[in-house]
Amino acid sequence: MLNTFYKNSGPNKLCDLFYKTNINYKINSNIKNDQNLIYDIKNLREATNENITFFHSFTYMELAANTKAYACITKSEFAQYLPKKCKKIICDNVLLLTAQITEKFYPNSIIDNNNYDLINIENVFKKIKSGKNSYVGTNVEIGSNTQIGHNTIIENNVKIGKNCFIGSNVIIRSSIIEDNVHILDSAVIGKKGFGFIPVKSKNYKYPHIGFVLIKKNSEIGCGCTIDRGSLSVTVIGENTYLDNQVHIAHNVIIGDNCIIAGQVGIAGSSIIGDNVMIGGQAGISGHLKIGNNVKIAGGSGVIKNIADNLKVMGYPAKEFRKFIKENK
Amino acid sequence: MLNTFYKNSGPNKLCDLFYKTNINYKINSNIKNDQNLIYDIKNLREATNENITFFHSFTYMELAANTKAYACITKSEFAQYLPKKCKKIICDNVLLLTAQITEKFYPNSIIDNNNYDLINIENVFKKIKSGKNSYVGTNVEIGSNTQIGHNTIIENNVKIGKNCFIGSNVIIRSSIIEDNVHILDSAVIGKKGFGFIPVKSKNYKYPHIGFVLIKKNSEIGCGCTIDRGSLSVTVIGENTYLDNQVHIAHNVIIGDNCIIAGQVGIAGSSIIGDNVMIGGQAGISGHLKIGNNVKIAGGSGVIKNIADNLKVMGYPAKEFRKFIKENK
Amino acid sequence: MLNTFYKNSGPNKLCDLFYKTNINYKINSNIKNDQNLIYDIKNLREATNENITFFHSFTYMELAANTKAYACITKSEFAQYLPKKCKKIICDNVLLLTAQITEKFYPNSIIDNNNYDLINIENVFKKIKSGKNSYVGTNVEIGSNTQIGHNTIIENNVKIGKNCFIGSNVIIRSSIIEDNVHILDSAVIGKKGFGFIPVKSKNYKYPHIGFVLIKKNSEIGCGCTIDRGSLSVTVIGENTYLDNQVHIAHNVIIGDNCIIAGQVGIAGSSIIGDNVMIGGQAGISGHLKIGNNVKIAGGSGVIKNIADNLKVMGYPAKEFRKFIKENK
Repeated sequence: MLNTFYKNSGPNKLCDLFYKTNINYKINSNIKNDQNLIYDIKNLREATNENITFFHSFTYMELAANTKAYACITKSEFAQYLPKKCKKIICDNVLLLTAQITEKFYPNSIIDNNNYDLINIENVFKKIKSGKNSYVGTNVEIGSNTQIGHNTIIENNVKIGKNCFIGSNVIIRSSIIEDNVHILDSAVIGKKGFGFIPVKSKNYKYPHIGFVLIKKNSEIGCGCTIDRGSLSVTVIGENTYLDNQVHIAHNVIIGDNCIIAGQVGIAGSSIIGDNVMIGGQAGISGHLKIGNNVKIAGGSGVIKNIADNLKVMGYPAKEFRKFIKENK
Repeated sequence: MLNTFYKNSGPNKLCDLFYKTNINYKINSNIKNDQNLIYDIKNLREATNENITFFHSFTYMELAANTKAYACITKSEFAQYLPKKCKKIICDNVLLLTAQITEKFYPNSIIDNNNYDLINIENVFKKIKSGKNSYVGTNVEIGSNTQIGHNTIIENNVKIGKNCFIGSNVIIRSSIIEDNVHILDSAVIGKKGFGFIPVKSKNYKYPHIGFVLIKKNSEIGCGCTIDRGSLSVTVIGENTYLDNQVHIAHNVIIGDNCIIAGQVGIAGSSIIGDNVMIGGQAGISGHLKIGNNVKIAGGSGVIKNIADNLKVMGYPAKEFRKFIKENK
Repeated sequence: MLNTFYKNSGPNKLCDLFYKTNINYKINSNIKNDQNLIYDIKNLREATNENITFFHSFTYMELAANTKAYACITKSEFAQYLPKKCKKIICDNVLLLTAQITEKFYPNSIIDNNNYDLINIENVFKKIKSGKNSYVGTNVEIGSNTQIGHNTIIENNVKIGKNCFIGSNVIIRSSIIEDNVHILDSAVIGKKGFGFIPVKSKNYKYPHIGFVLIKKNSEIGCGCTIDRGSLSVTVIGENTYLDNQVHIAHNVIIGDNCIIAGQVGIAGSSIIGDNVMIGGQAGISGHLKIGNNVKIAGGSGVIKNIADNLKVMGYPAKEFRKFIKENK
């Protein structure tokens, strides 16, 4: 997946990347003079031998063992699980150092600065129907027969397909929206995720260089918030429908033909299969994998992976019949 | 309850209604030549002998047995429960066929197309106080001494009473709002409900020809979403108060003097009595009946009907003292 | 904490304050001729001997015993817990009478009337970057290097510090926002709380003369709602981050360095310590005290106070390991 929107200021020499960070160069003596050019920072799966990556949680051990990255930021106890030829950069706070390195590649990805050069949509896209006070920013495409409501801001880096319906008071940035997608009133799509490194008195905001991809024929309800990925992409699958007030955090990937009822929340980096039904107000923790054809009852709290075809309920969510039996 | 807002293109002859739908005419030979005029499609309760209705769930068996409808779309195993003289139209997917027939009566009710002929409120209602960039669409009435905020869109088919307060960034369509109602910032009222027939790769959007009725002296909090009914009406009773971020799905009916705290969600077609108190983040499943004077503790998940005067808590919600005892 | 924003029409003589209220003067014969000047109405903790206060719940017994208020509105059975020299005003409905008295001091605090004299931000603050259709009302200050998005309304009584980022479609009123705070799209800050005295057929709206204080380096996510205090202040501590769609009710006080995930709700008057982490969709009941360094798992429902350093989960929330053990 390309980082389509954010300008990469690389490549950087590996040895230069850590200049002015607080890593211990003595421990990391192997990188001190490494002049190899690093072109980008990517996650363990996507990194090539011209990239740097990071490994901060046991959840990703298998991906770590198979990464093709030239170098990897990690903790000392995790280094042994990485491929032999991958250069290890050892530090105490993997995410903080990763954020600092990401910022070197993408210095403008920390804050969603407001664009003050917006133009009325009708002045740019003369064939697109658009409402009162709706504006577009930089690097925006809108397909034919798409209609846009009132007081809607299509900010920077947005590609909208054909035959889409965008409601009023909507805000979209850093997103790719395929054909025939409906985005209803007051939704906020593509905002930077809730990612930062906790630091007393002033947290370190994590860069978000990813984007949101909403596949064709989907519908996003009123007041939904879908955050863009940090290093990768947040995906809403084809023909997937979200009801009102749903929150989708950064890096979440949702499959095709899913039905997600009102006020559901899905925490960061979880992966949802195809044909999944999620009842109202259910919550799914971060970094989970929910299989295909899973049904999650309304109000459930999912804190573990769920295999294909299961029906679950409760908090913590368990097999449906078990829950009903225990709660007679 | 009249379908006030959506233009009915009927009547249609019964035999013509099923033209180009995928029903099996052999099974439904009884309708093949039925020239009787059908004036509207209504739910089981409201249908007259000039209407067609539908029966898709055992929940509605009693209503089905007493319907006055001339004809009814249903499944073969349900047909026996309908009155003898009611013509049965048998099919596999009752809701899909119902949606297709509804669309024949109300072809413009599928999508909330943006109205591009909005006019500044102050140009239409010279005596109404209204803020910056607030607009009205077609078929709108606003009563005396009502005030409207900024960036607010009163779209089509809205009747607002006297002495109402409408905040900023509000969107209202297809709604009747009685006197002295307060609708706070960023609420979205009257949007089509989350109703569609799941179809692989492209769902069939269900028509929503109903509306929202907010009775006098009520208050709707910031960021609330109240969807309009599909065939009937979504009702917020008199002097009922909703806190912020509450979601009310289509066809829900809420009684008088209710107090509904922040982030509550009520799923489609549930009926809530009078004087009901619902604590923050509680959820109520669809198609339920909650009695008068019921108290539902914050965070509860209600999945069964609740009789009058009960106090419940938990997920699934149970009698309050039982819950407290079990959770010491 | 000063009631900075709402004009106090006092002082009033104690005996005059109860004119046209429905208290029983026979029972309250002690106040009938009390000409003492009362300068303000405050809560039990903040009231001085020139103020009147109110005591309506056993929760506040200790505060009541030590109040310095000249007079206190209370129920007959609570009067014995107040200091001897504090004049007791006995009534049946403490909150209703308190609301009526508050209204005498602050007659304009009941409804957030729209301000129809808004001015384009760029016309008032020539050095502040601001987007399309963004406006300011009365008594607004904005610090240097702060940027403001599009369709944003900074209504009345708002002080914003330096280096702040305010997104689009944001509404702010009656709030003090310190330096380097980020408020993301569609947030609504400083609206009157969900406070009223339930009265059949027409509730009595409670005055809200407080404000919202967001301390420096904090971040408020998209679609959050933070209501202002009724008699005092709603506080978001320093370097505290709120994810999207969080609801903070009136009078809540949140400490420093907290992390609050998406769709969390905190009910009125609860106090949250420093360094508290709250997972997505968790709910906290009103009038609770959550200690420092507490961790609350996502989806939990907290209905009791939590001591420092605990980690809790479940509904009702209990000690984390206990919950995990019971739910294997």
